[in-house]
Amino acid sequence: MIRVIGFDGDDTLWHNESLFALTQERFYELLRPYSAGPDLPARLFETEMRNLRLFGYGAKGFMLSMIETAIEVSAGRVTATEIQTIINSGKALIEHPVELLDGVLDTIAALDGTYELLLIMKGDLFHQESRIAGSGLGAFFDGIEIVSEKDRPTYERILKRRGIAPGEFLMVGNSVRSDILPIVALGARAVHIPYHITWQHEQVAGERGDGVDWWELPAIAALPAKLAELAAGHE
Amino acid sequence: MIRVIGFDGDDTLWHNESLFALTQERFYELLRPYSAGPDLPARLFETEMRNLRLFGYGAKGFMLSMIETAIEVSAGRVTATEIQTIINSGKALIEHPVELLDGVLDTIAALDGTYELLLIMKGDLFHQESRIAGSGLGAFFDGIEIVSEKDRPTYERILKRRGIAPGEFLMVGNSVRSDILPIVALGARAVHIPYHITWQHEQVAGERGDGVDWWELPAIAALPAKLAELAAGHE
Repeated sequence: MIRVIGFDGDDTLWHNESLFALTQERFYELLRPYSAGPDLPARLFETEMRNLRLFGYGAKGFMLSMIETAIEVSAGRVTATEIQTIINSGKALIEHPVELLDGVLDTIAALDGTYELLLIMKGDLFHQESRIAGSGLGAFFDGIEIVSEKDRPTYERILKRRGIAPGEFLMVGNSVRSDILPIVALGARAVHIPYHITWQHEQVAGERGDGVDWWELPAIAALPAKLAELAAGHE
Repeated sequence: MIRVIGFDGDDTLWHNESLFALTQERFYELLRPYSAGPDLPARLFETEMRNLRLFGYGAKGFMLSMIETAIEVSAGRVTATEIQTIINSGKALIEHPVELLDGVLDTIAALDGTYELLLIMKGDLFHQESRIAGSGLGAFFDGIEIVSEKDRPTYERILKRRGIAPGEFLMVGNSVRSDILPIVALGARAVHIPYHITWQHEQVAGERGDGVDWWELPAIAALPAKLAELAAGHE
């Protein structure tokens, strides 16, 4: 029986990737004079992946990777003013008010009390804490975990520390790579709710809810019915 | 009776501020052609404080603040190559191997088993986790807390969650502002071990160990004797 539900934050409870995508579009536009051409997105992604081991996830590392990419693709001709524009757009991304996805508040409020609710996010500690504060959802969660990577050892550590058996746990998130596969691998269950954009790094080809350990739902509002169905199947 | 000891990491267990200071010296040297003059350190600090609310603590925010300061003080004349140099020196700071302070390994190993040991650090989650891994000290700690700010509510939350009464807790650290005053304010005890450099933001004027709730020690090697003295005084 499911006793504890873990929720991802970015693109599961609130919009995130759409903000990054918007910031990237502005970045591509800014570099148009240097005719970096159609491979600019690939160059930026390459820089991000190269820097991941030093910077981890989050907006500050993204800003630094944009600056490095601008210097590279312009062969050092990008101006200080243009670099300041990149920094300003990154700051705007960090400062952007938290926008909840449709149905999030009602669903979380409906599950509160019946289930123990955890928020399990990766990324920048400081930025994510301010997003949780801005979301107004903090009080619904019995625990908040901000981690540097959402892999199987991380989830195992969290469940063990909190005394949660895998069979009691269900994770809800938009990333098959970070929210679903490591969860299923350790014997817990998961619900995948796709967001309309997925960062290339989080993409996993050809994976769909298998209907045994994990399921795909179109929106978070469908979660309570799915949980009721799982509970009924258990009787 | 002291049952749990909390340790700060940066400049308490391993060198940190000296690396930042070295990076800053290189930054000042780089900007010398723009004759930013003697107020350059103050300008950088100003930028860091202005950005703190968006970036929090840590090396990535520091890199972005150096870049912004360079753009400002050069009136936009700093070159892309110079900005790349700033980014490279920030990356070198992040990649720098962890260097333990004298006596740390022996002291921590000696206290392990007798006391429950916690590591309580602020800063960048990703960078701090890699430092803990690089320090080789991880296994000695019963718990690790990486937080965005070390203030009284944060410490209260940690102690409460872990079932530690303030009277059972002693915090060890180099920052009077972050490791000592909030601890004493909540009725726990603290040991201040100054590092030879203190970041301006962490400086607190005119504060010295009062000998009632907090004490100053010259080095971490003096900690076991101090703990023995406190335990004896309690008998």
